[in-house]
Amino acid sequence: MLPTDFIENLYEIVGESHVNHSESSRLAYSFDATPNFQAMPDIVVSPANAEEIQQIVRACNEYQVPIVPRGSGTNLAAGTTPTQGGLVLLFHRMNQILEIDEENLTATVQPGVITQTIIDAVEEKNLFYPPDPSSMKISTIGGNISENSGGLRGLKYGVTKDYILGLQIVLPNGDLINTGGKLAKDVAGYDLTKLYVGAEGTLGIVTEATLKLIPKPSSKKTLLAVYDSMERAAETVSAIISDRIIPATLEFIDQPTIRAVEDYAHVGLPTEAEAVLLIEQDGPEEVVLADMEKIELLCKEHGALQAQTAASEIEAEALRSARRTALSALARLSPTTILEDATVPRSEIAAMVRAINEIADKFNVRIATFGHAGDGNLHPTCTTDARDEDELERVEQAFEEIFAHAIKLGGTITGEHGVGEMKSPYLAWKVGEEGLAIMKTLKQSFDPNNIMNPRKMFAKETRKRIVL
Amino acid sequence: MLPTDFIENLYEIVGESHVNHSESSRLAYSFDATPNFQAMPDIVVSPANAEEIQQIVRACNEYQVPIVPRGSGTNLAAGTTPTQGGLVLLFHRMNQILEIDEENLTATVQPGVITQTIIDAVEEKNLFYPPDPSSMKISTIGGNISENSGGLRGLKYGVTKDYILGLQIVLPNGDLINTGGKLAKDVAGYDLTKLYVGAEGTLGIVTEATLKLIPKPSSKKTLLAVYDSMERAAETVSAIISDRIIPATLEFIDQPTIRAVEDYAHVGLPTEAEAVLLIEQDGPEEVVLADMEKIELLCKEHGALQAQTAASEIEAEALRSARRTALSALARLSPTTILEDATVPRSEIAAMVRAINEIADKFNVRIATFGHAGDGNLHPTCTTDARDEDELERVEQAFEEIFAHAIKLGGTITGEHGVGEMKSPYLAWKVGEEGLAIMKTLKQSFDPNNIMNPRKMFAKETRKRIVL
Repeated sequence: MLPTDFIENLYEIVGESHVNHSESSRLAYSFDATPNFQAMPDIVVSPANAEEIQQIVRACNEYQVPIVPRGSGTNLAAGTTPTQGGLVLLFHRMNQILEIDEENLTATVQPGVITQTIIDAVEEKNLFYPPDPSSMKISTIGGNISENSGGLRGLKYGVTKDYILGLQIVLPNGDLINTGGKLAKDVAGYDLTKLYVGAEGTLGIVTEATLKLIPKPSSKKTLLAVYDSMERAAETVSAIISDRIIPATLEFIDQPTIRAVEDYAHVGLPTEAEAVLLIEQDGPEEVVLADMEKIELLCKEHGALQAQTAASEIEAEALRSARRTALSALARLSPTTILEDATVPRSEIAAMVRAINEIADKFNVRIATFGHAGDGNLHPTCTTDARDEDELERVEQAFEEIFAHAIKLGGTITGEHGVGEMKSPYLAWKVGEEGLAIMKTLKQSFDPNNIMNPRKMFAKETRKRIVL
Repeated sequence: MLPTDFIENLYEIVGESHVNHSESSRLAYSFDATPNFQAMPDIVVSPANAEEIQQIVRACNEYQVPIVPRGSGTNLAAGTTPTQGGLVLLFHRMNQILEIDEENLTATVQPGVITQTIIDAVEEKNLFYPPDPSSMKISTIGGNISENSGGLRGLKYGVTKDYILGLQIVLPNGDLINTGGKLAKDVAGYDLTKLYVGAEGTLGIVTEATLKLIPKPSSKKTLLAVYDSMERAAETVSAIISDRIIPATLEFIDQPTIRAVEDYAHVGLPTEAEAVLLIEQDGPEEVVLADMEKIELLCKEHGALQAQTAASEIEAEALRSARRTALSALARLSPTTILEDATVPRSEIAAMVRAINEIADKFNVRIATFGHAGDGNLHPTCTTDARDEDELERVEQAFEEIFAHAIKLGGTITGEHGVGEMKSPYLAWKVGEEGLAIMKTLKQSFDPNNIMNPRKMFAKETRKRIVL
């Protein structure tokens, strides 16, 4: 139970109508998109601006109440579940695009704006905001920033972090700071901008962001290549990069995913194929045409059964949306879907997919794999049933082996989903005990009362049962 | 005086021949490229590997001896002066390119490799490492990383930070950590990689780096545009970007710089011009030709007296080297040259250059300005005489006003040179007292004994005489 004083303080700060502690509201914010993680918050608050957030943070510090900042709750690693109870902070009242600056190629936005809204607004001005997480139609930019969201265009264009030039941040002590700016170059002090992108809300609250924009590519082409072997698909990926071509997207879909997508979306994918690659290039038309011609050739040289550029934008859009529906299509197969994002160096994709399939067999679980082959960011996706405790235990063991194998191949436990609570037991596998220790030192120094999204990123214990 | 035990410990770690405390050696490392900053170190040590550095750091912690990591000492903000005495750490024995991975497009290097050596090695394989600080022929990659070096290609390609995928770091407590990897996407924990790029050696020592490479652009064109007004040159810069063209370089040189360069290098620059723009585009040939044609037109539309693409690579190289010799050419004019890098949003370049000239007049000092117009990173350069105390006081006041004006225009006190000791009094102007406080918290938590490059970035007092 929260102290009455504290609640009255919140009423004063944001107004009573923006504080909600009804059962239904608390229930609605007790989970995010991660299966099997749920915890009730004590209260849900919707501030109007940074000043109100400063006051809320100060009050939470005084009363030792945890704060969980939350965009649209599309997190897949239990990054926005209120594990320790406390206050869920919503941003729907801070959802404005404040400026699109065509001379400096920047957009200044509030954290609650939907990603797709930004993309559409800048494209109208012939500009481009490349990060395109699969959830972009519902995710907020604030969530993207806190999670350093990736997407399909990561190979060529990078991820959210590469497009954040400046932030306004409320620190855990309630101070407001501004980092960076409309500046391509700025080396004044430590780079807090990049530190906060991907900090998962554990170091403070982003209240405004300055995004970098680039000119919108003038044309785009889409190609589908079909394989009867995963190895050949992976060889093609390497061959394209070795030929010094960087496609805008280079996506991989395995047979179980192809079948689920085809069953769901009926776009004419070849359900007998072992693997397909969906490859896009964008840029000036002559470059796109030349690249796609070379890519088509490379696909065929490396054993593609067919490789064909979409004849029309309608056909291309059908292929793109086929890839984008992969998760929804797989989700129809069983009551519970667990989507992971173990990531490896590009050269290890074939080895990793092979390992995933072997591990799935070993533990007798169903795992389909799709993802961003160009940047080694794979999404092994398990279709299971959370009510089957025995199976769920095997699923957990399988993913544990998958993460361990990714690390063995020079990869990481998460490419774009974040650590959250779900992967916190594995973080030391990637960063080492010494790396984990310095990260904890950083967290402790910024947030000594541990009010900012507590229990995320850092597990109480690691899987090695070493208390840190 | 260092304790004998400590020195004997160093002998054991690196071997006596790699420890130097002669007067001449200490003198050689008592300054970097910054005028008027000098302090004697106690000892100079050249380790062979990360393990030795771990032991050195542990010894320094035990005996409370400051460590100043130093590459080639090209720093312009007194970032590598041993202000508090102590140990200068050299990297000339750690100067190997360990790997160029053509499949993952990465290079793994030791900190002591010369930047140009990396650029040449990867270009031989038709790959490209874009960051090109003016000092690249002598600077080390370790120095570039610690300073987050920029360069002429920053507008289109970004800066050093954008090309660092992973680091091996010795922490101030002697622990060794590995961050990132050959991974385009990695969100496992806080982004220590980006935090250490630009940390100016105050948080630990980089002992290895994994660099991101991209395909080498297949062609390049260079254009010189001549103006009788600074305003028109700045208008052209805005017009090019507004036309959604991002040139590889977009450099600005003012009249005093033109005259100094021409006098020095005799490349045929028009000495009567008020300003010239040096514009380069690279990429596929057809794109470069189309862009350069448009750029030429835009230059003329916005009042260029002439705008001509170099007819040959020899002519282009002469123009490029003219720009690159700007500092050397200005340095010939007087005993002391102070090169600054106040940076503003691109849209404010004309306003900033105007302000620089007014401030120079006000304080009766000579300031020439050149720099990276495309990214707003200007280099006002004062030709003066350090022995003239009265003039030097006026120079300092002038630069103080220049930094203040850059901040007023939404800019920063340093775009690519770093804070070091020289600009530490101004850091709060950019990041605010609250920003400075959280940066100090970070430093204190990582390096509680303050052994890592002490007195850099954080001034003992700010110019406002507030003790922090």
